[in-house]
Amino acid sequence: MANIPKNTRVGKNTVIEEGVKIGENVIIGHNTVILKGTQIGNNVEIGSNCVLGIQPGSNKRMRKISQNYSQLIIKNNTKIGNIVSIYLGTLISENVFIGDHASIRENVSVEEGTVIGRAAIVELNSKIGKNCTIQTLAYVTGDTTLEDNVFIGPCVSMSNDKYMGAQNYRLKGPYIKERAKIGNNSSLLPGIIVGENTIVGAGSVVTKDLGSNQVVAGVPAKKLKNT
Amino acid sequence: MANIPKNTRVGKNTVIEEGVKIGENVIIGHNTVILKGTQIGNNVEIGSNCVLGIQPGSNKRMRKISQNYSQLIIKNNTKIGNIVSIYLGTLISENVFIGDHASIRENVSVEEGTVIGRAAIVELNSKIGKNCTIQTLAYVTGDTTLEDNVFIGPCVSMSNDKYMGAQNYRLKGPYIKERAKIGNNSSLLPGIIVGENTIVGAGSVVTKDLGSNQVVAGVPAKKLKNT
Amino acid sequence: MANIPKNTRVGKNTVIEEGVKIGENVIIGHNTVILKGTQIGNNVEIGSNCVLGIQPGSNKRMRKISQNYSQLIIKNNTKIGNIVSIYLGTLISENVFIGDHASIRENVSVEEGTVIGRAAIVELNSKIGKNCTIQTLAYVTGDTTLEDNVFIGPCVSMSNDKYMGAQNYRLKGPYIKERAKIGNNSSLLPGIIVGENTIVGAGSVVTKDLGSNQVVAGVPAKKLKNT
Repeated sequence: MANIPKNTRVGKNTVIEEGVKIGENVIIGHNTVILKGTQIGNNVEIGSNCVLGIQPGSNKRMRKISQNYSQLIIKNNTKIGNIVSIYLGTLISENVFIGDHASIRENVSVEEGTVIGRAAIVELNSKIGKNCTIQTLAYVTGDTTLEDNVFIGPCVSMSNDKYMGAQNYRLKGPYIKERAKIGNNSSLLPGIIVGENTIVGAGSVVTKDLGSNQVVAGVPAKKLKNT
Repeated sequence: MANIPKNTRVGKNTVIEEGVKIGENVIIGHNTVILKGTQIGNNVEIGSNCVLGIQPGSNKRMRKISQNYSQLIIKNNTKIGNIVSIYLGTLISENVFIGDHASIRENVSVEEGTVIGRAAIVELNSKIGKNCTIQTLAYVTGDTTLEDNVFIGPCVSMSNDKYMGAQNYRLKGPYIKERAKIGNNSSLLPGIIVGENTIVGAGSVVTKDLGSNQVVAGVPAKKLKNT
Repeated sequence: MANIPKNTRVGKNTVIEEGVKIGENVIIGHNTVILKGTQIGNNVEIGSNCVLGIQPGSNKRMRKISQNYSQLIIKNNTKIGNIVSIYLGTLISENVFIGDHASIRENVSVEEGTVIGRAAIVELNSKIGKNCTIQTLAYVTGDTTLEDNVFIGPCVSMSNDKYMGAQNYRLKGPYIKERAKIGNNSSLLPGIIVGENTIVGAGSVVTKDLGSNQVVAGVPAKKLKNT
């Protein structure tokens, strides 16, 4: 069992593996699992039935993944809901909020003040800027970048594999620039760039790079006007 | 530990906080967490690894939420699956079925006989009528109303924030009238009204209010015929 | 408690019901629930906070489901993530990979080498062939068949109920033939047949059967070219 500061509240049946580090004034729910390598800052809140510090795995049909990750870092004042899973090799900064049922893979960084919604998923190797909002059930694929203040609506879908497993293609997710907003249930194709301040309407399918300061919508998404 | 009637079956490692009320003939799985304020009626079944009675939380970039909720009420004969999360301030009526991995926020009411599918999500302040079906992975956003006998297909997406976080806008989800049916993976914009008996085809994007007794489809959704 | 071989590692607070069978060199995480009837092969890895071997349930508004299932079989060398739910009556073959938060219902078969992504859902009575990929948050509805080497992109949606609960219709999911690829966030209507090698572009809505060796896209999906 890890060394737990006296002012930390840990719920019942919560498993904290050897070598976990926990800061001051931390609250952890019941039946949560905190695996070795997890480092938790001060004033962090974690709900019940979470699994934190997961080591990546795969089968032989999946891309090779590193198993050399040794740390999951969760910084001060961050709140993590219930039934959340987060991998080793990832950094969650200060004042982040992560909703229930969310999942965050390895080699991800989530910067200060960002909100990751309920059941949202962030895949491996993605960079999420400051003060972003990723809403409920949104899917951030692997190898994606969100700059600061990006808004990803509920149920937005992204992909990073142009050939859907068929070719030896370098996987590349979308790159979404500052203050862009993606409407609910839109689909973004692999490697798509969305410019600053650009707004994508709900249910759009974005098949080409989008410049800055545009409003686009439709299948495929077309420019409607400037912002 | 709460006072548990003798004819209630509680699984191993299940945490039941002080002040929880449990009726007759209740079955609760293993490793489930039932937090204070939860009130469970008679003949209720609850699976394993659930978290019930969650107090809402937020960070400073999210809308202010009440933390004054003190009760989660689950009425007689309701069944709740495994790995489900439900908040305080919510009422789940009789004979409701809630699938595994589903999540229901605070200040929600779910009326009699409604089915909430696997991994479906109902956000805060929403009212779900009697005998509705909300299918797998469907997303009911905050501030939404479903009248009785509404059908929400799998993976349907809704939003309640017209300006995607940019303006000081009163959040408003869709209002869906009796017996309307929304096809799988459709997208509904904020505040949209769908009339009685109206059918929305799969994959549609509904951008305007819809009258009663229509069949609509497409992006944006257009009327095809009367029902 | 089940009979657990000496070379099996079982985490803390994991509940293993009477009658569970476990092979050699199995690793099981913490706080997982393995219900009676589950049979686990050799070299299987299972994460934390899972629920395996679930007995189906329903309410009176849902279709009648069998409760006669007595076994969940998980074959050798398969890996199951964290926070996963799997039902009785299902067969998971060798070398399968099942991501975190995934859910698989009763009377399903998943053949060798298939990858089922994070938070993906496979409903009852579905047959998933060999070496298929079902990506993150994809939804495989009930009564669906995937032949071998099928690729289902992230957030793909399917339905099996043409009348959305309104009529006494025989439920029928899609039938997807060998090597077909379905792009992210596409929607497939009930009973749709997708031919061999056919590629469906991201965000498409497939309303009619598709022949072999085609590339289709759009709402509704139309043929663009041959593969």
